[in-house]
Amino acid sequence: MNKINVNKQRIEQKLFALGKIGCNANGGLDRTTFTPAEIEARNWLKQELHLLNLAVHVDAAANIWGRREGANSELPVIAFGSHIDSVPNGGIYDGALGVILALEVMQVLEENNVKTIHPLELVSFSAEEPNPFGFSTFGSRVITGKVTAEDIAGVTNPDGQLLTEALQEAGGDPNDFVSAIRSPFEFAAYLEVHIEQGKRLLKREIPIGIVTGITGIYREEVIIRGDANHSGTTLMKDRADAFLAAASMAIALEDILLNYPDEEVVGTIGQVFVKPNATNIVPGEVTFSIEIRGQAREKIRDIVSKWEERVESIHRHRKVKVEREVKLDQVPSPMSEKILACCEEQANKLSYPSYRLGSMAGHDAAHMASVTQAGMLFVPSLAGKSHCPEEESRIADIEKAGNVLLHTILALDNSQ
Amino acid sequence: MNKINVNKQRIEQKLFALGKIGCNANGGLDRTTFTPAEIEARNWLKQELHLLNLAVHVDAAANIWGRREGANSELPVIAFGSHIDSVPNGGIYDGALGVILALEVMQVLEENNVKTIHPLELVSFSAEEPNPFGFSTFGSRVITGKVTAEDIAGVTNPDGQLLTEALQEAGGDPNDFVSAIRSPFEFAAYLEVHIEQGKRLLKREIPIGIVTGITGIYREEVIIRGDANHSGTTLMKDRADAFLAAASMAIALEDILLNYPDEEVVGTIGQVFVKPNATNIVPGEVTFSIEIRGQAREKIRDIVSKWEERVESIHRHRKVKVEREVKLDQVPSPMSEKILACCEEQANKLSYPSYRLGSMAGHDAAHMASVTQAGMLFVPSLAGKSHCPEEESRIADIEKAGNVLLHTILALDNSQ
Repeated sequence: MNKINVNKQRIEQKLFALGKIGCNANGGLDRTTFTPAEIEARNWLKQELHLLNLAVHVDAAANIWGRREGANSELPVIAFGSHIDSVPNGGIYDGALGVILALEVMQVLEENNVKTIHPLELVSFSAEEPNPFGFSTFGSRVITGKVTAEDIAGVTNPDGQLLTEALQEAGGDPNDFVSAIRSPFEFAAYLEVHIEQGKRLLKREIPIGIVTGITGIYREEVIIRGDANHSGTTLMKDRADAFLAAASMAIALEDILLNYPDEEVVGTIGQVFVKPNATNIVPGEVTFSIEIRGQAREKIRDIVSKWEERVESIHRHRKVKVEREVKLDQVPSPMSEKILACCEEQANKLSYPSYRLGSMAGHDAAHMASVTQAGMLFVPSLAGKSHCPEEESRIADIEKAGNVLLHTILALDNSQ
Repeated sequence: MNKINVNKQRIEQKLFALGKIGCNANGGLDRTTFTPAEIEARNWLKQELHLLNLAVHVDAAANIWGRREGANSELPVIAFGSHIDSVPNGGIYDGALGVILALEVMQVLEENNVKTIHPLELVSFSAEEPNPFGFSTFGSRVITGKVTAEDIAGVTNPDGQLLTEALQEAGGDPNDFVSAIRSPFEFAAYLEVHIEQGKRLLKREIPIGIVTGITGIYREEVIIRGDANHSGTTLMKDRADAFLAAASMAIALEDILLNYPDEEVVGTIGQVFVKPNATNIVPGEVTFSIEIRGQAREKIRDIVSKWEERVESIHRHRKVKVEREVKLDQVPSPMSEKILACCEEQANKLSYPSYRLGSMAGHDAAHMASVTQAGMLFVPSLAGKSHCPEEESRIADIEKAGNVLLHTILALDNSQ
């Protein structure tokens, strides 16, 4: 057969059509999990899947699946997709792009009467983004058995809405989570296209990012206890200023990371609360979050231990007490080398420059990697921006990612 | 006449009696300006003044005055006192001590039938502490013409209560502030005993602090604007982290002050707000307060300019924007050298070691210094603590301060 390709006008049209659902006055996207706008987007997607004659199934986690039978329906499935929920005031590309390209792949195959050997399944995972219920990558965690019905019993958002109720409204069934679990035998592969959310591809002027793995995320809550004291009568040398201690620890973390040989290891102190937080009182207590991300657990451990040494010395020097609590220790998920190589080969054949890079953000692919060989493609993000109304990717780059996705699916279909 | 002395049992008894009014479950004092507890304390004080046969007068700023006539009632007044309001969850010594010692002086003079030449006036100033109406050292500012009726028109606390109404409930008259203004001709001197709120006397084991001046206070609000960005996908070198910039500026300020030759110059970053303040977002904006205190304006200026240089370099290096706004620039108030020397002489005669030191906190004496020769005595604060339930001073030290106050008043009375 002739080389088939995705249709960029159609991609753009669908991206903008979906992007209207939940669009706010800033031009940002308010389509948080299980909100009315997100339910509307789910309905839009199901309609599109029906139009493509796919077998639509909403599982107990409210993940939306659209299945296209293969020549051998007994074979494991090649799955691909992403998510359609957004962060508050986010952009129209994060998540939606991977679902739109999955739709486009299904449509191109249909138009060209391509019959694959394996069944194909498009998936739109529930609640990928951080959301008011406190469960991100919810759908992919449920189907890989990592979140159970017990885990969500009684969970509410700050408005008091139960997650179980919200899930039911979206078509899920919290009483039957077990039915949503997919076994490793059911999948041949999982593929996901996503925006990079960074500047690495853009800076290198490379359209195709081939993701080597998904970052591990380590988080602690740190509490520094010094002495709250009068800002006038307490001489500098008599202070145990909790804010200065926290500031020193933040600078130390940055110093360690800037000097670390792997730029794909990053660390952030993003949340800081000072007590009593008054202009005329020396800060007595500071609570802050520290987050470290990296592609290898040993590297994260290495940074933590280097930082620990510095914290130890700061705490002694500044006469403050330090309490640390690990809040998250998510292991990195390497992507399948076989799929990486296959994506690379397809990009080569299409004469698209490609570049291997780690994903610094979490994705559903990280959970899918625990049940099947998984791979991700990244599309350059303009100005590296994401999770904001300015989030944007160029249609020329999106088209290329669509073609690599399409031909990787076909190549995997033939090779397995 | 024989040497007369204050009575320490009586001082202690009155201090604890007054300290019960507004005492909370933590053992702290909740007697914020114009609250029911503070009004109750005012009534207690007026009752005490009546018992001493003093002429009680509540002026338009609700300051409470108790006058004891002198041999020549035309002579200017020797005034002394402090305040009886407290910070939330404060201690029983801050302010109250100066009023109780003033009461004790009046009582000792009465018991010993001492007739001074000058009239004496005890004063308890309104709203000395920072309070929800936003006016500290309110009473002394009104009587020295620094706060006018226009300044307080429409001012409310966060509950929406008008300051004018609160003032009226306390016996003041916001429509007649002019009547509260006292001219320089009316005063011969002003004296105030207060707790040190620091550790300088305690460390030197000296009971009597003789205050050389009251600190100037300079405050800015600083806003740092960086780029809020994804904490995973934004490489360390691509960040403009507003928190790290603020942290560097805080460390720089401390560094400048620790190396400054005058330990009575201090600086504090006490209030810090981070935006968006999420674990997984590089801080995009930080707003913080900077406060610098010192006994000389040039020294404050010097620190500001040294810090400015460091801020300039940090802002360029970190690619953040910096906005600064001066919020307060209160000049230092030197105390009267004549009164300092007189206090020192009385301490000497009483064989009490004394030590000259600057007041690092603001006091009503700073405003009184603009209309008369003013002086302050400091009593050692245990552990340097103040504005907290643990605030404490030893009765032995308090007694000594009471005697120095008494004899300084008598010496000034005879010398003028």
